[in-house]
Amino acid sequence: MSIDWEKKETAGLLREVREKKPLVHCITNYVTVNDCANALLAVGAAPVMADDIGEVADIAALAHALVLNIGTLNARTVQSMLAAGRKAAELRRPVILDPVGAGASGLRTETARELLRALPFAVIRGNVSEIKALIAGSGTTRGVDADEKDWAADGVDGVAAVAGALARRTGAVVAVTGVTDIVSDGTRVLAIRNGHALMSRITGSGCMLTAVIGAFCGAAPDRILDAVGAAVCAMGLAGEQAAARAAKDRVGTGSFRTYLIDSLSLMDEAALAGGMQLERRA
Amino acid sequence: MSIDWEKKETAGLLREVREKKPLVHCITNYVTVNDCANALLAVGAAPVMADDIGEVADIAALAHALVLNIGTLNARTVQSMLAAGRKAAELRRPVILDPVGAGASGLRTETARELLRALPFAVIRGNVSEIKALIAGSGTTRGVDADEKDWAADGVDGVAAVAGALARRTGAVVAVTGVTDIVSDGTRVLAIRNGHALMSRITGSGCMLTAVIGAFCGAAPDRILDAVGAAVCAMGLAGEQAAARAAKDRVGTGSFRTYLIDSLSLMDEAALAGGMQLERRA
Amino acid sequence: MSIDWEKKETAGLLREVREKKPLVHCITNYVTVNDCANALLAVGAAPVMADDIGEVADIAALAHALVLNIGTLNARTVQSMLAAGRKAAELRRPVILDPVGAGASGLRTETARELLRALPFAVIRGNVSEIKALIAGSGTTRGVDADEKDWAADGVDGVAAVAGALARRTGAVVAVTGVTDIVSDGTRVLAIRNGHALMSRITGSGCMLTAVIGAFCGAAPDRILDAVGAAVCAMGLAGEQAAARAAKDRVGTGSFRTYLIDSLSLMDEAALAGGMQLERRA
Repeated sequence: MSIDWEKKETAGLLREVREKKPLVHCITNYVTVNDCANALLAVGAAPVMADDIGEVADIAALAHALVLNIGTLNARTVQSMLAAGRKAAELRRPVILDPVGAGASGLRTETARELLRALPFAVIRGNVSEIKALIAGSGTTRGVDADEKDWAADGVDGVAAVAGALARRTGAVVAVTGVTDIVSDGTRVLAIRNGHALMSRITGSGCMLTAVIGAFCGAAPDRILDAVGAAVCAMGLAGEQAAARAAKDRVGTGSFRTYLIDSLSLMDEAALAGGMQLERRA
Repeated sequence: MSIDWEKKETAGLLREVREKKPLVHCITNYVTVNDCANALLAVGAAPVMADDIGEVADIAALAHALVLNIGTLNARTVQSMLAAGRKAAELRRPVILDPVGAGASGLRTETARELLRALPFAVIRGNVSEIKALIAGSGTTRGVDADEKDWAADGVDGVAAVAGALARRTGAVVAVTGVTDIVSDGTRVLAIRNGHALMSRITGSGCMLTAVIGAFCGAAPDRILDAVGAAVCAMGLAGEQAAARAAKDRVGTGSFRTYLIDSLSLMDEAALAGGMQLERRA
Repeated sequence: MSIDWEKKETAGLLREVREKKPLVHCITNYVTVNDCANALLAVGAAPVMADDIGEVADIAALAHALVLNIGTLNARTVQSMLAAGRKAAELRRPVILDPVGAGASGLRTETARELLRALPFAVIRGNVSEIKALIAGSGTTRGVDADEKDWAADGVDGVAAVAGALARRTGAVVAVTGVTDIVSDGTRVLAIRNGHALMSRITGSGCMLTAVIGAFCGAAPDRILDAVGAAVCAMGLAGEQAAARAAKDRVGTGSFRTYLIDSLSLMDEAALAGGMQLERRA
C-alpha cells in the first residue's frame, strides 16, 4: 500500500514535467544530441542546445535545468560548460553532469573532475566505471561503456556504496546505471530494476536518460532524488516496452530506437506507476 | 478552377526539384543536421554540409542554394556563413536564413541581424518570435520555440504585416511558420494551413522545412515566392500524412518522425496539389 | 563448392566481430555520426567518438581500429585525425580513411592527400569520384556524391584499375563503392554486387559502411582484404533486405533507414554467406 502510494507520487512527476514543460539547456555531444532533443520533447520538456561562450549564460538563464555531457568534449565547449554552469548555479537551477567516458582518457577524467570542483551539481549520472573514475581514478572504462568487471566486482551494495560516497563528497544526487540502477543522495538509496539489455545495443540510451533527468529536475527542483528516480524508471520502462514491441514485430535495433522514443511520448502517469520497479534501500 | 490550376502549377515545383536534383549547401546546427540531409534527399535534392572557412566558398559555388541556420551557432561557423553567403550571392544563388532562437540570446539576435546586413537573402524562415526579434528586438522567444503569445496577439493579419515589413526591409521572401504559415514578399501574401501539431513534438521540423525551402529555391530560383509556398505546403502535408499514419498505428513521436521523411519521399505532384491548403491573400 | 566455402569463410568474419566486439574510434562528420555509432553497435562493435587533440591519442590506444572521415572536416579536427592516426599506426591498429567529398573542394582534396602522406592507411573507402580525386585531382565530384560520369566512363574494369593503382601507391586496401563495389589490395580484386539504389536516397550509407569496415578490420587486422569484403557485403545485403521490407510495407526512405540498421543487427553468418554477391576477379 505505502509502496503503491509512493510509486504514484513518484510517477506524478511525469505529469509535472508535462504541465511545466521545462526548458532544458544541453551542452552535449554531437553523437546523440538529436536523440536527447527528441527524448526531451517526448517526455514533454523543451530542449535548447547552445554551446557558444557568447550565449551560454543567456540561455542557461532562460532554462529550468542545465545538462552538461562530455561525450565529445573539446576545449571550446568545456569553457562554455563552466560559464553556463556558473550562471545556472547562481540562479539555483539544477545542473546535471554526464561524465561520458570518464576514465577512458586523462582529458575526460580531468575535465569531469574540474567541472565537479567548479560547479555545484544537483545530479551526476554515469555508469559504474565513470562514477568510479570520478572518485578515484580507479575505473577501467573501456571506451565510453561500462566495464562489466567494475559492476560484477561490486554488486548492488558495492555500487550503492560508491554512489553514496560520491554523493556525500559532491552534494549531488548520484545515479549509477547498469543492470540495476542505483540512485543515492548520500543517505537515501533507490534501486531501480527497469530497463532492457537492448538499450545498450543503441547509442544514446545513457545520454537520453541524463537529458530526461534534466527535464524531471527542471520540473521538480525541490525533489531532486525523486525526480531522478522517476526519470530513471521512465526511461527504463520505455526500454522494456520498446523491447517487447520489437520482439513482437521481430525487428532489430533501428526500430527499437524509434520505439523507445514512441514509448516515452505515449507513457502516462498510470503506466509509469504500474511499471515502476523501484525500491528504497535506505 | 483558377485556384486548382494555381495549385497544380505550384505543386509542379516538386517535379522540378526531382528533375534538377539541386545541390543544397547547408551550414546548420548539429542537432538536426541529419534530419535536414535526409529531408533534402527525400524531396529529391542533394545535401552537402560544409562549414570550414577554407572550403565554404568552393562548396557554395558548386551548390544551387545555400541554407544558413544559426541553431548552434559559434564564432567559427558564423564567419563561414558570411564567406559562403558572399560567394553564393556573387553567383546569384538563393541564400536562405533560418534565424533559430533569435530573441533567445543577444548573440543569436545580433548574429541574425549581422547576417541580414551582410547578405542579400532570398528567403528568411522562422517562427513569429524569431521574425519579430529580427525586426525590433521585441520578441519574447522562449528558447528556440515560438512564444505562443507572439502569435495570439497578432492573428494571421498581424503576422502577415510582420512578414511583409521584414520582406520589404530586406528584399527577402519571409516565411513565418505557425498554426497558419504566412509567406510574403512584401506585396503578395500566401497563407498555408497544412501541417499538424505533432510536428512541434519532434525536433527538426522547422530546420527541415528551411532545408527543403533551399531545395525548392535551388530548383526554381526565379520563382522564390512560389518555391517557398510549395516547400511549406509539402512539409505541412507530409506532417499531416505522417500524423494520420501514426494515429492509425497508435504510435508515438519516434515513429512520427520516421513517417514524416517517408511522406516527403513518397509524395508526388498530384498528391501535393490535392492536399495543398494554400490561399493567396493579397 | 570452393566459392561457397570461401563465402562461408568471409561471412565468418561477422561472427568474429560479434565475439571480439572491437572498439572503433571514429573521428567523423557530425551529419551521420549517430548513424555510424548505431551501425557499429548493430554489427556487434562498440563505437567511441572523440576528436579533441587532448585525448585522441589516448582513445586511439584503447581502440581496435580508427576511422577518419572528412565529411565535415575543419582545421581543429584534421589535427586530431593526424595525432590519432599516428598513435594507431604506432600500435599497428588498422586506420581507415573515408575521403568524403574529395574533389569537391581544394581543402578536402588536399586534406585527404595530406592524411595519405602522413599515415599508413589499412583501408581507403570512397566513391569513384573521391578515389580518383586522391590519385590525380581529375575527379569531378559533385558535392559529396559520386559523379555518375566517373563511373560510367570506366566500367567495372576501369574502376578496378583505379582502385588497384591507389592501393599500390598507398599500401592500403581500396574499396570503391558504386553499383558494383570494387575492393583491391593492388593485386587481388573483389567485385561485390550487393546493395540497393535506396541506399543513395538516405544520408550515411557510405559513412556507415566505412565505420563497419572499421569494425571488421578491428576484428581481423591480419585479413584486411577479406574484412573489407565482408563489411561491404554485409552493408549491401542489409540494404537489399531493408529495401525489400520497405517495398512490402510500402514505406519511404525514413523507414528504409531504420530497416537498414535493423537488418545489420539481425544478420547472422549464415544469412550473410547466403546473400553475399562476391566474386574474386584476380
